[in-house]
Amino acid sequence: MPLIPVILSGGAGTRLWPVSRRAHPKPFMRLVDGESLAEKTFRRALSVAAGGPVLTVTSRDYYFYTRDLYDGIVGEDHEHPFLLEPVGRNTAPAIALAALYLERKFGPEASLLVLPADHLIRDEAAFRTAVDEAQALAARDYLVTFGIHPTQPETGFGYIRKGQRIENSSGREVAAFVEKPDAETAREYVASGDYDWNSGMFCFQAGAFIKALEQHAPDVHEAVTACWAGMDRFRQPLEIPAEEFGQCPAISVDYAVMEKSDRSAVVAGDFGWSDIGSWKAISELYESDAAGNRIHGRAVLVESTDCFVQGDKRLVAAVGVKDLVIVDTGDAVLVADRERAQDVKEVVNQLTDLEDEAAEFHQTVHRPWGSYSVLEDADDCKVKRLVVKPGQVLSLQKHHRRAEHWTVVRGTAKVRLGDREFLLEANESTYIPTGTLHRLENAGTGDVHLIEVQTGDYFGEDDIVRYEDIYGRVQA
Amino acid sequence: MPLIPVILSGGAGTRLWPVSRRAHPKPFMRLVDGESLAEKTFRRALSVAAGGPVLTVTSRDYYFYTRDLYDGIVGEDHEHPFLLEPVGRNTAPAIALAALYLERKFGPEASLLVLPADHLIRDEAAFRTAVDEAQALAARDYLVTFGIHPTQPETGFGYIRKGQRIENSSGREVAAFVEKPDAETAREYVASGDYDWNSGMFCFQAGAFIKALEQHAPDVHEAVTACWAGMDRFRQPLEIPAEEFGQCPAISVDYAVMEKSDRSAVVAGDFGWSDIGSWKAISELYESDAAGNRIHGRAVLVESTDCFVQGDKRLVAAVGVKDLVIVDTGDAVLVADRERAQDVKEVVNQLTDLEDEAAEFHQTVHRPWGSYSVLEDADDCKVKRLVVKPGQVLSLQKHHRRAEHWTVVRGTAKVRLGDREFLLEANESTYIPTGTLHRLENAGTGDVHLIEVQTGDYFGEDDIVRYEDIYGRVQA
Repeated sequence: MPLIPVILSGGAGTRLWPVSRRAHPKPFMRLVDGESLAEKTFRRALSVAAGGPVLTVTSRDYYFYTRDLYDGIVGEDHEHPFLLEPVGRNTAPAIALAALYLERKFGPEASLLVLPADHLIRDEAAFRTAVDEAQALAARDYLVTFGIHPTQPETGFGYIRKGQRIENSSGREVAAFVEKPDAETAREYVASGDYDWNSGMFCFQAGAFIKALEQHAPDVHEAVTACWAGMDRFRQPLEIPAEEFGQCPAISVDYAVMEKSDRSAVVAGDFGWSDIGSWKAISELYESDAAGNRIHGRAVLVESTDCFVQGDKRLVAAVGVKDLVIVDTGDAVLVADRERAQDVKEVVNQLTDLEDEAAEFHQTVHRPWGSYSVLEDADDCKVKRLVVKPGQVLSLQKHHRRAEHWTVVRGTAKVRLGDREFLLEANESTYIPTGTLHRLENAGTGDVHLIEVQTGDYFGEDDIVRYEDIYGRVQA
Repeated sequence: MPLIPVILSGGAGTRLWPVSRRAHPKPFMRLVDGESLAEKTFRRALSVAAGGPVLTVTSRDYYFYTRDLYDGIVGEDHEHPFLLEPVGRNTAPAIALAALYLERKFGPEASLLVLPADHLIRDEAAFRTAVDEAQALAARDYLVTFGIHPTQPETGFGYIRKGQRIENSSGREVAAFVEKPDAETAREYVASGDYDWNSGMFCFQAGAFIKALEQHAPDVHEAVTACWAGMDRFRQPLEIPAEEFGQCPAISVDYAVMEKSDRSAVVAGDFGWSDIGSWKAISELYESDAAGNRIHGRAVLVESTDCFVQGDKRLVAAVGVKDLVIVDTGDAVLVADRERAQDVKEVVNQLTDLEDEAAEFHQTVHRPWGSYSVLEDADDCKVKRLVVKPGQVLSLQKHHRRAEHWTVVRGTAKVRLGDREFLLEANESTYIPTGTLHRLENAGTGDVHLIEVQTGDYFGEDDIVRYEDIYGRVQA
């Protein structure tokens, strides 16, 4: 029976602010090797899918960027399906809809391998061995989770208490799922040898899972069944209807199903797993120098030790400090004690309370057609660099309160301005008066870069009146 | 006899990097109240000059900006003279030329009050009292320095050992000038009560100083006399000839004259003096909150104490740290232990070794005509915001390797482009092709702001061929 990887790609990862934000979350962060966790997870999924499909559950916000990343790996013509959540409802409803979808498509004995998109796995061979083990148990109607041997008394994870060994398998029954412990309890867990970290990865047959869901979480089962009934199953990406999904309880699969089932099993996941859950974890991916410093970007460290510096374009200097994480981005800089890296989420909480857009948005914002970076945001003008990907078209739009001056610096843009249409090459510029309909298109084969100078008295993203949009962003 | 303040404004102040740099040094930094030390020093000088002139010794690089600051205080039509050093030669030659200039102009009994431009004095009334005391001693042929009562065993200052009280004065003779001590020696100095910090402020009559210079430092006297002979004394600003000044020994006035003279005196400078010599000193100008944090700019601090944060446009977040100085600027960020703030100069040393322009230049660069800020510096374009002051004119120029696209966002610019001349208003733009002569002028009464998008393959400041320049920057 087929094994279908199901990638869960959502969640902001606020502990990795300011690089990970709601608008560009943790799976999209580039690691030391230049590749994102989303790409790594997709590659890993492909390697166990044996030529079959990889299903990704994500949100509309992340769909275009995720699809771009996948296209970069397997080309644009692939048919790996997407399920789009209108809102987040934790893992149980997402996995349940994936199970319904795959059960209808491949039958109840199809196995799901649930993979969060924001985890790192270093040992791919060991991973495949563990997946084989899990699949064998799934075929015996077990609901399998992957337990990670704990290397430290981590308080940020849930734990699994292991029960007795399952016959003809290296897996064990699950004695109990336990919530994130305090430091003292975590130390006891680690010392006892009876506990594993709960990785959030699962393997089970679609039919077995749905049956367990119906039995242990009938409210979730009912809600997702209603969603399923309202879905256009032949469309891609497959959108989950907002109204019905909004009725689902937000609950994790651990609580809804795994801890209530007597068929839960745990397989040892000794494959170099990390959830990259903090800047400390990120820093450990880098080689340290003789002073224990790890540097990505341009930095000058004077008598400083055991620091991690991640810079962007700017220079970071440190003097006489130790055990710090310093992360610099276009619009924000973080300085944190390395051992307090978990508390970075508190920064995001405070920013959210302040309604500060730095909580959600970056200086560089990804759009279906490419991206833009804000170079200047002042009272009298806003300056952006736009990057439009080949074949992409921005919406036909106009603005009430700003004019725009475009200078192409790379590639050739196709511009519609009022009723005219013309090409704009590098070192050419044009002017979009306030209230004039316009559209920007890249009809070429390389990226178009242009500098946009907005003049006027208001430059908010909400002053865009869209008339046609190939990405479905026209408001009715 | 008149008292003429002589402001010495030079030196980079590398301990205040990244805000103070060679191209925008410590006297120009804005403090908590928005005013720079150069402005504060000029105001203080005016208050003791009693309507007479204030002489400023600085370099050509700093002249325009310093003059702008002064114009902001006394209007454009003032005649406060400037002496411009072609290179730095420490304080003795600079003060000697000031003394020669003032002796010729006001006679040998004119008193000089030497004031470094980068010191803060909080108690102006006490300052004036001390100056009166010093001037009285200067009238008795004393060479007077101002001693600061030491509040801590500072190793960054020279010390003055006080001798016996001078008759009919609160001043004392100087027993000895001593160099910057080590920590142990500094503690002994402070404990003994016999020592003051050497403030670098002086008062003496022009003739008495020149006589002492001739006697104790004949090589300096000879070199500055040769400079003086080669100068066009009626021109303002008064430029010191480079060749002759280059022959001067680089030596401080303390070593050259003060410590050798038996007429050196010290007056107590109990007027709230600070040399603002480190970020720690800057931070102490701010009120701290309940957690001991002092914040200038936009910052979110989570469980952090006793930190100083100076932000610019960007957000600074700190988590679980203490006793840090965090300074954020457009192109660099500094994180330093507060007690190691002196060692920030090491960062500048390392950057200088690396020939990194962040050692010298800011993202915002001051020019005679105004300033520019770099918004983007990429391979395919460079984007700047230019601010041109009223009445100012950039040089008539052309570029070999770049075209420029200008969009005015504030004010009205007068543009010469080839043989044409036209006005460009806010929300209007123009294009300067590569190789085309052009000139930008602000003929209006408010600042002109424009966004300049440079396209081409090289954007260095050395690709400017100047034909006419009202600031004398045309190369022969």
